[in-house]
Amino acid sequence: MVYFDAASALPPHPVARQALLAALDEGWADPARLHREGRRARLLLDAARESAAESLGCRPDELVFTPSGTRALHAAVAGALAGRRRVSRRLVVSAVEHSAVLHAADAHRADGGTVAELGVDRLGRVDPAQVAELLSGGPGASEDGPGEEGTAALLCLQSANHEVGTLQPVAEVAEICRAAGVPLLVDAAQSAPWEAPPAGWSLLAASAHKWGGPGGVGLLAVRKGVRFAPAPPLDEREYGRMPGFPDLPAIVAAAASLRAVRAAAAAEGARLRALVDRLREAVPRLVPDCEVVGDPVRRLPHLVTFSCLYADGESLLLGLDRAGFSVSSGSSCTSSTLTPSHVLRAMGVLSEGNVRVSLPPGTTGADVEEFLRVLPEVVSSVRAQLDAPGAGTPKAGTSAAAPATEVADRAEDEGLTVDALGKRCPLPVIELAKVIGRVPVGGVVTVLADDEAARLDIPAWCAMRGQEYLGADGTAYRVRRTS
Amino acid sequence: MVYFDAASALPPHPVARQALLAALDEGWADPARLHREGRRARLLLDAARESAAESLGCRPDELVFTPSGTRALHAAVAGALAGRRRVSRRLVVSAVEHSAVLHAADAHRADGGTVAELGVDRLGRVDPAQVAELLSGGPGASEDGPGEEGTAALLCLQSANHEVGTLQPVAEVAEICRAAGVPLLVDAAQSAPWEAPPAGWSLLAASAHKWGGPGGVGLLAVRKGVRFAPAPPLDEREYGRMPGFPDLPAIVAAAASLRAVRAAAAAEGARLRALVDRLREAVPRLVPDCEVVGDPVRRLPHLVTFSCLYADGESLLLGLDRAGFSVSSGSSCTSSTLTPSHVLRAMGVLSEGNVRVSLPPGTTGADVEEFLRVLPEVVSSVRAQLDAPGAGTPKAGTSAAAPATEVADRAEDEGLTVDALGKRCPLPVIELAKVIGRVPVGGVVTVLADDEAARLDIPAWCAMRGQEYLGADGTAYRVRRTS
Repeated sequence: MVYFDAASALPPHPVARQALLAALDEGWADPARLHREGRRARLLLDAARESAAESLGCRPDELVFTPSGTRALHAAVAGALAGRRRVSRRLVVSAVEHSAVLHAADAHRADGGTVAELGVDRLGRVDPAQVAELLSGGPGASEDGPGEEGTAALLCLQSANHEVGTLQPVAEVAEICRAAGVPLLVDAAQSAPWEAPPAGWSLLAASAHKWGGPGGVGLLAVRKGVRFAPAPPLDEREYGRMPGFPDLPAIVAAAASLRAVRAAAAAEGARLRALVDRLREAVPRLVPDCEVVGDPVRRLPHLVTFSCLYADGESLLLGLDRAGFSVSSGSSCTSSTLTPSHVLRAMGVLSEGNVRVSLPPGTTGADVEEFLRVLPEVVSSVRAQLDAPGAGTPKAGTSAAAPATEVADRAEDEGLTVDALGKRCPLPVIELAKVIGRVPVGGVVTVLADDEAARLDIPAWCAMRGQEYLGADGTAYRVRRTS
Repeated sequence: MVYFDAASALPPHPVARQALLAALDEGWADPARLHREGRRARLLLDAARESAAESLGCRPDELVFTPSGTRALHAAVAGALAGRRRVSRRLVVSAVEHSAVLHAADAHRADGGTVAELGVDRLGRVDPAQVAELLSGGPGASEDGPGEEGTAALLCLQSANHEVGTLQPVAEVAEICRAAGVPLLVDAAQSAPWEAPPAGWSLLAASAHKWGGPGGVGLLAVRKGVRFAPAPPLDEREYGRMPGFPDLPAIVAAAASLRAVRAAAAAEGARLRALVDRLREAVPRLVPDCEVVGDPVRRLPHLVTFSCLYADGESLLLGLDRAGFSVSSGSSCTSSTLTPSHVLRAMGVLSEGNVRVSLPPGTTGADVEEFLRVLPEVVSSVRAQLDAPGAGTPKAGTSAAAPATEVADRAEDEGLTVDALGKRCPLPVIELAKVIGRVPVGGVVTVLADDEAARLDIPAWCAMRGQEYLGADGTAYRVRRTS
């Protein structure tokens, strides 16, 4: 079994395991107590804070430990917004932030605040020029409150995207925020194992289980001088910023493993970068109708994402699992969601048949070659089950799609109409692909589809197949055959 | 070194340690993922939930894991109040709840809600009759909002007090709440290691490090049918009630150790109960001017608290630490606070020189006898340093109190006045004790004191010494000598 889902969680690093065991004996007491056991725990907590602060590039008294990266992000957004409540109630987030940031934005909206969304290009990257425009008067992509253009209480930008690996221009955006007097929250969850985040952030969040630290440890840093009003209820723990008894052994393990991981990051990053380059080159060559997404150069070293036409992510994931590979698909937050990934949607790329491969440290070239060997078979088997075009004869009794000839030909004189209402991704696209050959060049086919993914995948299919997407009217998508 | 601060945190139980180690290998992945590692983590999480639910007497789907007992209490109060927001915005809490509940009450107040406080008797116990009265029209001890008598959104009552060990009449109060249609939140943090909480609760909170589970694990149970609206931001974790990546190894360890601790609870409880009885009998006999507080019978098996006149808790704690015993003092939440424990204040008992002894499982009779041997010396040494009455000659250069002769005699004709302004507990009481002998029987002495503890300790001293407390006017406390 080969685990290729490092961006989700890593097995405990040997250093984390060792530190956790030692701290179980030494650091179980309440560090707020004055007795010997309490003082010993306090020393461990202080040392962990110093070490982690150094790894993140901040002062120890700027850093608090939280129960998760999610909690760190929630607390960061709420505290920064409350601290600047009188200045502005406008929150700016990139469209591809982790769902924890988007959930915090939803809560802000429900509380009467406004949220402006910063779009990304097809590689998943925000444009610093657009940030500058947005902070100096321009509206966001989905401004949803009364006009408050030209200022913001907070801007949230991840250092690297968790689904496609694209690095964001954090340093440039930080400079723009500094000039505009707007604090910047950087979600460094994905990049923290590799390097300290670029300077210039006002608030920073990270999560230990992304670098092989234990679960249950997030990190939140707030620069001195940044207005921050943590949400009550609170207590005296963690400088009054994060209440509750701290999980000290886990914190000690998190700090120790971050240091160990960073010491090996440059060499291991270069090695994994080459393996990912190999995947980026080979996957679209070995798998027909497959698109690699995300920035090919300015990216995390260990992560690559691709989407396959005529397949669904869940089946690919389960097929790869049976073939011995653990990967992820779609949104990073839950694989049980039925809506397509908000990241792929914001990028405007194909979402169907989405697979994220994220290599843990130690991945070998042989692992990658074996993956490349089994992947085409898995994709082709999933396509065959769906009776996809060019996938050969489906296995008897396993076809999920009605024969295309039955669904087309409804109104021959007005062009073909394919009724895929009630059918889930990737079936609408499969049916479109099946009938396109029967449309005369220059003719139009209409696909009726109410699956949310169709809005992304039908245009993406057109782009990949060189056909013309004419637009959608409700659930009716119109496509002109151009070749 | 003997650790007598079990009520704060326990060293990891051997079962917790073993389970944590196993789950580090098996349960590090994201349980929301579909791949093999994710499914394996999910199985562990499900099993831990079932086991812990059985220990607490609830259904698995009523129970969620939280990052701490504090977080469980915060979420319970906020969720229950939000769920019943349209019915009532009145929160009722006992005056001796854990500070996490009181902080949640503060947040509710800041949000425009009202809070009624339920007083306790001198043993620290609430009166079910007062609960009934309060829920059927009576005001609370410190009603602080517009009159909303006769209903409540939520009532919070701990199963046992964390500072003095007194058990609360949870079953009776639950019946009264049921009849009144008011949900009851039971903070079972202290009693959960010993027994399942009495039935009848609507919401329940507990904390694993109280039973030798790891830090970082709280438990929150919400009965089916109880209106509960968790505070956003949320995600899909833990039935949408507690966001963030779960610390699964710690959760597994928490559930396994709870089961192990419960299996031994009856026998170990009886054994520790006898040791605590020994302490309750011997401490006031061996230490002059010492009061044991809390219910002598309806109490936690392992915990006893006493207060010593003419001494301060921090010095006693550090003296006992040097003598090889780790104990706690004052508020359970922080030993660095300058305000006296809200629990002792609500009970109306002496707060100065407060020591909490809580025995971990395995404590021997020899440990207890050794504690009884060193305690009188430690108390007497602290009193000598403070130049307390009857403490003998203070060590040169270490007296913190000015000689009593200089502070008295200010207005001989109107009775004595002792100026202890600016002096911290226990100095005001020490100076009072020094001059009382110079007051004629029937005469009055006035103590000027601005330390907050004086409000509690001067009346408590009067009760213990058989003098008459006449009341306070601002910072002037008047005492009549009656014997």
